[in-house]
This record gives sequence, structure tokens and C-alpha cells, in this order.
Amino acid sequence: MNVFIVHAHPEPQSFNGALTRHAQKVLTAQGHQVVVSDLHAMGWDPVSDRRNFVTRKDPIFFKQQQEELHAGESGGFVPEIQAELEKLLRCDVLIFQFPLWWFSVPAILKGWVDRVFAMGTIYGSGRWFGTGVLRGKRAMLSLTTGSGETRFSEDGLFGSLEQLLLPIHHGIFRFTGLDVLPPFVAWSVAHVGEEARARYLEAYGQRLVSLDTTEPLRFPSFSEFEPRTLTRKGA
Amino acid sequence: MNVFIVHAHPEPQSFNGALTRHAQKVLTAQGHQVVVSDLHAMGWDPVSDRRNFVTRKDPIFFKQQQEELHAGESGGFVPEIQAELEKLLRCDVLIFQFPLWWFSVPAILKGWVDRVFAMGTIYGSGRWFGTGVLRGKRAMLSLTTGSGETRFSEDGLFGSLEQLLLPIHHGIFRFTGLDVLPPFVAWSVAHVGEEARARYLEAYGQRLVSLDTTEPLRFPSFSEFEPRTLTRKGA
Repeated sequence: MNVFIVHAHPEPQSFNGALTRHAQKVLTAQGHQVVVSDLHAMGWDPVSDRRNFVTRKDPIFFKQQQEELHAGESGGFVPEIQAELEKLLRCDVLIFQFPLWWFSVPAILKGWVDRVFAMGTIYGSGRWFGTGVLRGKRAMLSLTTGSGETRFSEDGLFGSLEQLLLPIHHGIFRFTGLDVLPPFVAWSVAHVGEEARARYLEAYGQRLVSLDTTEPLRFPSFSEFEPRTLTRKGA
Repeated sequence: MNVFIVHAHPEPQSFNGALTRHAQKVLTAQGHQVVVSDLHAMGWDPVSDRRNFVTRKDPIFFKQQQEELHAGESGGFVPEIQAELEKLLRCDVLIFQFPLWWFSVPAILKGWVDRVFAMGTIYGSGRWFGTGVLRGKRAMLSLTTGSGETRFSEDGLFGSLEQLLLPIHHGIFRFTGLDVLPPFVAWSVAHVGEEARARYLEAYGQRLVSLDTTEPLRFPSFSEFEPRTLTRKGA
């Protein structure tokens, strides 16, 4: 398999860094190919605007999706986006490695999605969800948190992590056709000590060697919706 | 009132631009003070790392929250963050104006939160939710979407907008003590035509003149949780 890790942490010696280095080791030992985009190390720019393109469909009024369609037809993405598109289209498994910041991905990673997941290339013209461009590939979030698991339970102060991750799992991964694996979460890593962190690395290794056999999360399929309104049948 | 609009759209002539200009006009006419941070126009950098600080608590290992605490004690934020902190602490109402990208805020706006909402200054030491630094202030999302309202209903293909916005409403606004007003949503603005857009501007104006009397959304209060575990009482 070709595994593509998009890594978003400003400190290389962080536990996020340790998780990605461990993933490279474990997956390579299994004979898989691993590609890492280390966004901070690359100096990735997360701002999405005209800087995404070498072409201009409309030089007066900037409409992002129109420029994306045009760039997809005419090879108009800047090299740093084109490179990420190629890594994404080539991979079998996509992993986002990040610390949970404000109950979501850090801006540098959100801006990787904003810029790389371009209309016309990664979605559009009826290619989404079950008919998505990325169907057949798998995706997984691997994240660290500042707080413990009980705060992220259904009855916890923050509410369930599953709900908090829904915009990413459903709105980014499923939207483009990816099968979503259960997230790997290293809870409260700053507070748990060396031994617990070693156990997290071990547990992450176990998840990685079963990337191709893990059951994806269940999301509703197109057949459950009325084709015209895209609302649930019988609702 | 002092109303602070954080505006995130790359095209000044977009409908997002029209909404923010309308807000400035309506609120100023009512005698309110309006401050706008137009993130694209400012060239706002959304990447959060050592660039946030002129001070260094630990020059070897970068731990964001530790550096934020230190910077808060020693005037160590770079000028562009210090300026946003002052606007935020001075305002009575905070508005985020943005197009919904990938079921969340654009990266440039997420990175405004990542960098400005600093531990020790905006939260920390028991100051969060009902005891938050920003308590007494109000916040509202004003957003545009690419699709119509039914797709964002409970039974729609995308699921309810309320759920999708939860990480922002609860995880950013309530977390820091802000009262959360119902979002203003201009649905499917690219497709609805001039007349409907004029009605959206009119409706937004109505929302703006009642910012101080609108009932905030209901979120659980601390008294509903066990103080020790922060899980719901009786759960």
C-alpha cells in the first residue's frame, strides 16, 4: 500500500512527531510505501486565494471553484498544490496527524484541504460520497488531545469526539468518497508520562498494521436519500 | 456597543463582502462602533508556531501553550496578535463573517483563532465556559453556503448545520465564555439571484439591530456537570 501522512505539528520533537516517525518505521517494515507531507517543515501556506493558481479564468472577480475547475482543465495549479494532488491521488490510505486545536484541525491542515481538495479534480460533476473521486481509498485521523477521554464522552463537558469530528469525517473524507477508519486518539499526551506514551506508540502500531482490514465507520449511503431532494427517504 | 467583525473572504466584491459592508452601515447608523479585521486584506498569516512570539520561554522545545502563558505575562506577542487581542477584549459582540468551506471556517479564520485565543490571556486557570474571560460578550457566525438549506437539515445529506457548527459554537465561543447567538445563514448565495441576495441583506440588517436583545443558544452550564469528573450529573 501507499500511505500518505499529512503531518501538522510545529515541534518536531512533539509526540505527534514521534507518532509519525513510528508510522514510517512500522509501515515501511511491512513493505508499504510511506509519503509524509510535514506541513510546518515544508512551510505550507494555508491561505486559499489567487495564489493557488498560475491561470486566471476571470481576472476581475475571483470565484474559487470556477478558478479550480479552470486550473484542473489547464494544468493551472501552482507546483506546491499540484505536488499534493499527485500524492493524494496516488495513495491508498490518507492519514492526518495533528494535535486537536479548538476541537478541530490546526489551520495549517485545514488550509491543506481548502487548497488541495479542488473542485473539478477532487470532487464535482456528481462525483462525491459513494461516487467520489477518492472512493476505494481509506482515511484516518490520528490526533492528540490536551484533555482526557471522559471530557470527550457523550456526557462529558466537551461532548462526544465523534460529533466534534463529524465535519471532518463526513464533510471532508466521506464527501470525497474516502472510507473513514475509526480515529486513533492519544488522550492527554502532555500529562500521561513516558510509559503511557510508549503504550500509545505500541497501540498506534497495531492500528497501522491493520489499516487494510479495519472496518470503516458507518455513514449513510446515497440509497438512503431521495435522489431529488437529498433528504432521507421517509423523513 | 463595540462590534468586532472578523471577515474571511478572498474576494472583496463577494456577497460576504456585501454583508460586512452592510453590517458596517447598519450598525454605524445605530450609533454602534464597528471594527473589522479583513483577514485577506490584512495578509493575515494563519500558521501558529514560534512566529506568534517575540519571547521564548523554552528555546529548545516549542510548547505552544507554555509560550502563550509566558508571552501573556511578559508582553511577548508579536504586534499583529497583540492588536487582535485588544480588539477582541474591547468588543461587546464578536462576529465571524465567512463562506462555509469544507463544513467549517476557512483556514485563514481558523488560524486567527489558533493564534489569538492564547492560553493565559483568553482562557486558562479555571477561566472557561461560565467563568470564561469573554463572558458577558456575545458572538455570532454569519456565513454563506454553496448549497440549499434542506441539505443541512437533520435529514439532509450533510446533516444538521447545528451539529456541523458545534465545534465552533461550543468549542471556541462557549469555551471562552461567549454567549452564542443563532447563526445568520445566507444559503446557496451563488445560485439564488439578485433579488434573494437583497432579501438576505435586509434580513441580516434585522439581525444586527437586535444583537443585544436576541436570545442566545442554550448550552449546558457547569452546574449540570459533576465538578470532579466534568461529566453530566446522573449520567
